[in-house]
Amino acid sequence: MNAISALAIVPFVSVDNMMRLVLSIGIERFLVELSTYIEEDFRRWPTFDKTPRVASHSVDGVIELMPTSDGALYGFKYVNGHPKNMREGKQTVTAFGVLADVGSGYPMLLTEMTLLTALRTGATSAMAARHLAPKGANTMAIIGNGAQSEFQALAFAAILGIRNLRLYDIDPAATEKCRRNLAPLGFSIKVCRSGQEAVEGADVITTVTADKQYATILTDNMVGSGVHINAVGGDCPGKTELHRDILKRSSIFVEYAPQTRIEGEIQQLAADHPVTELWEVLDGSAPARKSPDEVTLFDSVGFAIEDFSALRYVRDKLAGTSFYQELDLLADPDEPRDLYGMLVRAEMAI
Amino acid sequence: MNAISALAIVPFVSVDNMMRLVLSIGIERFLVELSTYIEEDFRRWPTFDKTPRVASHSVDGVIELMPTSDGALYGFKYVNGHPKNMREGKQTVTAFGVLADVGSGYPMLLTEMTLLTALRTGATSAMAARHLAPKGANTMAIIGNGAQSEFQALAFAAILGIRNLRLYDIDPAATEKCRRNLAPLGFSIKVCRSGQEAVEGADVITTVTADKQYATILTDNMVGSGVHINAVGGDCPGKTELHRDILKRSSIFVEYAPQTRIEGEIQQLAADHPVTELWEVLDGSAPARKSPDEVTLFDSVGFAIEDFSALRYVRDKLAGTSFYQELDLLADPDEPRDLYGMLVRAEMAI
Repeated sequence: MNAISALAIVPFVSVDNMMRLVLSIGIERFLVELSTYIEEDFRRWPTFDKTPRVASHSVDGVIELMPTSDGALYGFKYVNGHPKNMREGKQTVTAFGVLADVGSGYPMLLTEMTLLTALRTGATSAMAARHLAPKGANTMAIIGNGAQSEFQALAFAAILGIRNLRLYDIDPAATEKCRRNLAPLGFSIKVCRSGQEAVEGADVITTVTADKQYATILTDNMVGSGVHINAVGGDCPGKTELHRDILKRSSIFVEYAPQTRIEGEIQQLAADHPVTELWEVLDGSAPARKSPDEVTLFDSVGFAIEDFSALRYVRDKLAGTSFYQELDLLADPDEPRDLYGMLVRAEMAI
Repeated sequence: MNAISALAIVPFVSVDNMMRLVLSIGIERFLVELSTYIEEDFRRWPTFDKTPRVASHSVDGVIELMPTSDGALYGFKYVNGHPKNMREGKQTVTAFGVLADVGSGYPMLLTEMTLLTALRTGATSAMAARHLAPKGANTMAIIGNGAQSEFQALAFAAILGIRNLRLYDIDPAATEKCRRNLAPLGFSIKVCRSGQEAVEGADVITTVTADKQYATILTDNMVGSGVHINAVGGDCPGKTELHRDILKRSSIFVEYAPQTRIEGEIQQLAADHPVTELWEVLDGSAPARKSPDEVTLFDSVGFAIEDFSALRYVRDKLAGTSFYQELDLLADPDEPRDLYGMLVRAEMAI
């Protein structure tokens, strides 16, 4: 057939190429740079077109589409969440995404986002904690030592300098996997036998468990004053990790309140319970941490703008590299009104 | 790096491969078979998860995500609509789509859908007309001779046997392009100098113009009794093709009323104006055409279930062919909780 025109081509980043891109930049540098893209987009939050994600729920899980736009670029992510997958040797969460030009509607980038989501989730948590955690925080508890745990640890190390970790998971094999992955990277790691033990002396408590159910990973008595809680695992209706009493004595920060009230820890609270959207802290219109004794809580569920930032970052970093393939995704007839003619000419060229 | 596991692979159909697939099957056979998939899905309409499309509007156009699921499979389409693109040598509409497994959330197929949408739009129109058009219909007017026009003609030829065409477009070059493409295929074609001339003696009137504005392609006096109107072009808020008086004396059939009341010709009517959803005709719960004198109108805007049917059809037809590439879209670590370890092992393997 005819040579494929440049208009028809969309760069595609496979999982393999995403790994190469991340490794070529360095994981910690990738996390730091990505967090600056996310922070930049949070600072211009009002310019984004925001809609809650479009979810299709089933017995076994959920498939979601998460679109957003800043008026010049449009991005969306496809992401599933299927806790049972792990037992079948599959990922609980897989994702891919697209960045497009609002002016023409043409896609500009298609990329895997399973790895990229893991990275952006860690980068977002650490970016929030940089504004909310107590000064001089140097120890983090990580409760839940699954696929996201190392990315949380790396992001907090890269962005806040935290290298003392206290790990706990109901499955000791998960903790051992996390310890084994992180030990060579200069972390000081304490393997704990309970959540209670993990939070002892921690300045930051990260909860990142996976079961789709109401759970109580942290009870009220486990959380001392001055701590920052980074609640990552409670992220859909019916899935929470924290006891309600903790929420009631915390200053709560969220990404996008209309979505978090449905999906986050605060689904346990009244619909008008006061919360601060993180962008308000970043643009100076709301205070961050007000005192050393305050318990701050980032009730993170993951929002489309973080994926948008990640797509922007990957697009910028791809320039000049070979970490992508060219996909013939778009029809580009010689004459735009002649889609049928393109088909006929293809037949003659075969 | 390591060999990519089968779990990580998603088949991808490029534009080039879609053309090869369509040509290997034959365009008319493709349209006939696709229309049976669409009809099959319309007949089990209540089993689908239906939401209006998620649209992101801008000055120049719109980008939409159109998801649906039957509980076993999930499909969505990304599609844009940018009328100004044509002046820049780009397609007004481009699209791609994904079929996924509801049980695992894993994508099973990624495909171009610019060509596929053109085919499914024609197949849907002809499928509707097979139930609604007057018996013995043999002449169709096509007003608007852009990229969709040939697909409408081919679908009506393949599914209803209509081979007499009366073409009109405000741009004579578009009509000439359409005539030139269709003439070799055994159509009897009359090039007309006005919409009025085009509808003379037509049993079916297809309106498929592209401008994003309120227009009046058909006025009331142009539509005689007994005609079937296939209104394809009016498909978003502020974009209609028919005079309101025609609607008031037609029996109106739609895909999904909540969406069509926003996007279709019936946006000009009261929100409770009676309409019939096409699936009700197919499952026998509502009458089709009731008399030879009746004016029937299929107010088509394009619905996600038609794309779902098209994705299903392409998946079934791909089996045993070479018309796809294998994309490394999904991360597949040896141990599902060890996404970070996959990255580290990739580094060692580079």
